[in-house]
Amino acid sequence: MSLAAQGPSLATSASPHPFDPIRPQEIRLAVRILEAAFQGVKLRYNRIDIHEPIKKDVIPYIEAERLRKPLPPKPARLLYSYFYRLDTGAWCKALMNADTASVIFVKELPEGVQPPVDIDELAVIEEVCMKHPAVQAEIAKLQLPPGMTVCNDPWMYGTESLTESRRMFQCFMYMVEMDHPENNHYSLPCKFSPVFDAFTHELIRMDYLPGGSDAQTVETQPWKPVKAVQYAHDLQDEPIRTDLKPYIVQQPEGPSFSVDGNFVYWQKWRFRVGFNNREGMVLYNVTYDNRSVFYRLAVSEMTVPYGDPRAPYHRKQAFDVGDVGFGLNANQLTLGCDCLGHIKYFDGYRADCKGNPVLLKNIICMHEQDNGLQHKHTNYRSGAATVVRNRQLVLQMICTVANYEYIFAYIFDQAANIELEVRATGILSTVPFDNTNGETVKWGTNVGPGVMAPYHQHMFSFRIDPALDGHKNTVYYEESVPLPEDEKNPWLVGYTTEQTVMDKAGSADLDISRNRVFKIRNDNVINPITYKPISYKLHPAPSQMLLQSSRAIGYGRAEFATKPIWVTRYQDDELYAAGEFTNQSRRAVGVETWSKRNDPTENEDVVLWHSFGITHNPRVEDFPVMPMERISVMLRPDGFFTKNPAVDVPQSSQSFNKSTLHPDPAAAAPPSCCSAGSSKAKLYKRMD
Amino acid sequence: MSLAAQGPSLATSASPHPFDPIRPQEIRLAVRILEAAFQGVKLRYNRIDIHEPIKKDVIPYIEAERLRKPLPPKPARLLYSYFYRLDTGAWCKALMNADTASVIFVKELPEGVQPPVDIDELAVIEEVCMKHPAVQAEIAKLQLPPGMTVCNDPWMYGTESLTESRRMFQCFMYMVEMDHPENNHYSLPCKFSPVFDAFTHELIRMDYLPGGSDAQTVETQPWKPVKAVQYAHDLQDEPIRTDLKPYIVQQPEGPSFSVDGNFVYWQKWRFRVGFNNREGMVLYNVTYDNRSVFYRLAVSEMTVPYGDPRAPYHRKQAFDVGDVGFGLNANQLTLGCDCLGHIKYFDGYRADCKGNPVLLKNIICMHEQDNGLQHKHTNYRSGAATVVRNRQLVLQMICTVANYEYIFAYIFDQAANIELEVRATGILSTVPFDNTNGETVKWGTNVGPGVMAPYHQHMFSFRIDPALDGHKNTVYYEESVPLPEDEKNPWLVGYTTEQTVMDKAGSADLDISRNRVFKIRNDNVINPITYKPISYKLHPAPSQMLLQSSRAIGYGRAEFATKPIWVTRYQDDELYAAGEFTNQSRRAVGVETWSKRNDPTENEDVVLWHSFGITHNPRVEDFPVMPMERISVMLRPDGFFTKNPAVDVPQSSQSFNKSTLHPDPAAAAPPSCCSAGSSKAKLYKRMD
Repeated sequence: MSLAAQGPSLATSASPHPFDPIRPQEIRLAVRILEAAFQGVKLRYNRIDIHEPIKKDVIPYIEAERLRKPLPPKPARLLYSYFYRLDTGAWCKALMNADTASVIFVKELPEGVQPPVDIDELAVIEEVCMKHPAVQAEIAKLQLPPGMTVCNDPWMYGTESLTESRRMFQCFMYMVEMDHPENNHYSLPCKFSPVFDAFTHELIRMDYLPGGSDAQTVETQPWKPVKAVQYAHDLQDEPIRTDLKPYIVQQPEGPSFSVDGNFVYWQKWRFRVGFNNREGMVLYNVTYDNRSVFYRLAVSEMTVPYGDPRAPYHRKQAFDVGDVGFGLNANQLTLGCDCLGHIKYFDGYRADCKGNPVLLKNIICMHEQDNGLQHKHTNYRSGAATVVRNRQLVLQMICTVANYEYIFAYIFDQAANIELEVRATGILSTVPFDNTNGETVKWGTNVGPGVMAPYHQHMFSFRIDPALDGHKNTVYYEESVPLPEDEKNPWLVGYTTEQTVMDKAGSADLDISRNRVFKIRNDNVINPITYKPISYKLHPAPSQMLLQSSRAIGYGRAEFATKPIWVTRYQDDELYAAGEFTNQSRRAVGVETWSKRNDPTENEDVVLWHSFGITHNPRVEDFPVMPMERISVMLRPDGFFTKNPAVDVPQSSQSFNKSTLHPDPAAAAPPSCCSAGSSKAKLYKRMD
Repeated sequence: MSLAAQGPSLATSASPHPFDPIRPQEIRLAVRILEAAFQGVKLRYNRIDIHEPIKKDVIPYIEAERLRKPLPPKPARLLYSYFYRLDTGAWCKALMNADTASVIFVKELPEGVQPPVDIDELAVIEEVCMKHPAVQAEIAKLQLPPGMTVCNDPWMYGTESLTESRRMFQCFMYMVEMDHPENNHYSLPCKFSPVFDAFTHELIRMDYLPGGSDAQTVETQPWKPVKAVQYAHDLQDEPIRTDLKPYIVQQPEGPSFSVDGNFVYWQKWRFRVGFNNREGMVLYNVTYDNRSVFYRLAVSEMTVPYGDPRAPYHRKQAFDVGDVGFGLNANQLTLGCDCLGHIKYFDGYRADCKGNPVLLKNIICMHEQDNGLQHKHTNYRSGAATVVRNRQLVLQMICTVANYEYIFAYIFDQAANIELEVRATGILSTVPFDNTNGETVKWGTNVGPGVMAPYHQHMFSFRIDPALDGHKNTVYYEESVPLPEDEKNPWLVGYTTEQTVMDKAGSADLDISRNRVFKIRNDNVINPITYKPISYKLHPAPSQMLLQSSRAIGYGRAEFATKPIWVTRYQDDELYAAGEFTNQSRRAVGVETWSKRNDPTENEDVVLWHSFGITHNPRVEDFPVMPMERISVMLRPDGFFTKNPAVDVPQSSQSFNKSTLHPDPAAAAPPSCCSAGSSKAKLYKRMD
């Protein structure tokens, strides 16, 4: 079937680039395609978004762009939807071709497979919960004083059974004061927690939460008032600091980047900023000095398993990418708050449950920042110094997943490094705990009166699809090891490196004791200085892997988080480390499955997956809002160039930087600046 | 003996604080004290500097300061000197009391113990080398074209014998063009390397360096010209980038810090900036919100062993703190080049070999920087967001150690974190290598024509002298481990933490697989929320340890670098991880020795030493000047406070930050800012 003749032309605006995010007219087109396909059947849309284009069709197009050759036809523009048939009650997935306005396939999802939570659904459950008589009855038992109410955070139910196929939500309940929009309800958790069916809206069960340090639950009792620990400025008892002075970034000549739609050009870097509902920010076709470096970079999954062993907390294991979506949860950023300096914003779109496009404004911000020195050398004989500052380009997305916030940033620099920085902040997911007499638990931290924050892990998967001077790449690791203690090493100081090629799909561990470094190389391109294949290396974030037992259900759902390194051979549709459907999943069909194919991965189109995270045993300082904890992963050239690619960055100078000298009554005049100009004047006298 | 009556009064300026750096009049005083003590004997001064004050005498003084009580008498102001008696040829060390202008002791150093290199000595050796007929004869054999000359970097000789006691320098020779003060001689190493006696200035031996990939050496041949790889902007073949736009930091109301001499107050932090010739920047008496946190923080040592097994490279193992001194090598920083924004500089002093004070101007810079977001939370129901930016205070010192540069920064933030950031940059120490036919070696990287950069390690020791709410502290480590798979953990997801107290002095390894975290606590102060002792934790830099064989001489000299964690009980004079005298040392008398005392370290005055570093297998991108490689170590409160100490930092707002919106023809008006003000206006409607 085709709707191409019926729908309004997409040609009213330029046709999207293969890597562009979905447009509102594409959401409408998808709805029209599906309505035509399901004449008369009512559909509830869970998601409508772009589907990744077929890589083999994209490569000729982006190669022509890179080489400034005539462009071949664009690859097919693909859209997908998860939706629910109100007639049969079936969950479906459709793949569509936007160019031909036609359905490629519609599949019913197998029994037990749950598409992700959608935002409209979440709001309904929240309301259903609050209105339910059983919940109201529990609230009444609290005998709350005036000005207090109760609210709830609906959670994906998680998985404790391999047969359960109802779509469920567990609502965690909190008390909250009503006099301010930022009262911290996470400081006052309730001890009851209803479970609802997402379709029937029926109360499946009222769970009661442990009150003390063991698993014993109690009936709801009148609340013994305690003061909530507040994070909002208006609600602080102590005065807000008054001695912080403004710090203003100015770029009087504008930024160093240029932007055309979602295409960005900055300091020899070129790339496209992608966005989808699931992963949020994605980077495509990253090139440096017109050499291909990465085809696609994205945070493909994250899971947060909790370590409190007591029911119902054992089901708390969110998959924030697969269960909901970083794109859907991305904050709409505001000028002067989330970035500093000269800011470019990118927008995105989602569909609501009726198929209407919803603008997600300012969900990615881009700006430059100064990161101190990039390189410096002083010739101690002549006193002449070469100093270059480290200017960076930052693309940032902030996701609020109910209580937590994650701040993701890709940071580009002038020495051809790309950093993925993750900052964890927001509010701890808390549980009630009667700790007035000095009680503690073995799996959590008391963070306030009556409130405990259980231990948990945040496990991320960074999916790196390399394209170093082409798509045939190889992942290997290199270790630093002592040379044998023989006559070639008489002083016993020698060491060397040993390489191990990951020539089959699989996984690997880090090993700091051997300085094990993972690299990606292109065996077909030899560096003319080093005589070795050009390569990039991964600076990983060494992390404890998943702590739960390999016999736990959550382990099989998140097997990606049991190894820091995975290598697979590229296949379309293999994008998400824990598989496409994580919500109430029984086990993953993700990187652990694909790597088992043992595909050859030497000089192939490979994908490198890095799992990393934090074992987050909360500090009391992480409450009521968590000072960001930063994790960094870097991709650095290692024999990709023939020398430091930043030697052509201009000298740092006072005429450019316009710094200010702190006044000091005892000090002399400000010193003159290091500059190529001033050092030139010196003679190179010491050697003759 | 006392010169107090003779010398000019120190009272002309305020008497120094116990943690103040040496003053020029104190250098002159030390010279007068020693001249009086050694009537008529000619002395050559290797070093004159402050000696660490006796801790037990300092504590009452700084406690009175903290509590704003009447100050007790200051502890004795101690100075020390290493010097050489021209009459007997003996190296001596003197300890002096500046208050009484008297000698406390003078000791002759034992046979074979070498004080550090001094700057005057280095310049003399460099000149002696260039003028020596044997060196000139080798240079002549190169048959250099016009405009080329030869220069040399004198290196500490290192150690290959346990009986050698001559003071020696090995000069590494390089060819260099003469037309610019920043020609990169490290690109053109020579194959001869003379060794000189520092006292007699005699040529001890002419070493010849291997020319190829084995240990075979060759006689000096006429140079076959190759182009040097240049780092200076003037010397680039490619154009310098022109598309980098200015990025200016303004603080129109001034900085948020205040400074009184070397005392700094910023955002609840108070500390004193110390400086000495050996360690350079030292931080003293660090308090937060008037609670004592750290007594002293310093990078106590660094060693750089090289992995090229061939003579004479096996002796290349610099101890940049002990052999020379970060303070002596600290760059004199310049406005607008080394820091950006509103900059305060601190000065230092050294003595020359005649005992004259030499000003080391601007060797530490201090400024604020913005480091993105500190914490954020959006209440998804009300849409109200609390956003706080991460303002930091940076104290930076840059050390040039011949070819390399190290950038050290202590970074304070508003959430009571202290970061030690080390950036390695500068130029690789290179060796000649005839690599025109694609030859490579197993222990290095070809970085240009005829030049190879051997593998090496940079191993640092960060000495942390804690004082968490007092001086009786305990170091322990905590591991995250699964709970037993029993009836209390039926879902197999539970995990807990296990603590191991380091109750005796000793060492420990990191263990990422168990998330082993090292913490410092005060068992005498219980946190009223967590019910556990107040503590700080160390975020270490997980690093490969020393690679050389335990039977290598360098291993015994740098045993501190064989374990990432050491704990000792505090003793005066135990400051340097590899001991006081590292130059040509035969083995260390440092942390490995002191920890063997097995002193009790539970609830004692303890010192925590963290060894970390880089196994630096050079990238070709690290040449001709190295893009900085960053290592970070953090000290974070963990149960030290009762909640996030940054909740009182003001809201991030556009009125304060004054960001600029990137112009976009398609975009609507700039969004209004998140602010406590605007969010207040919203009603908290969803719950009732």
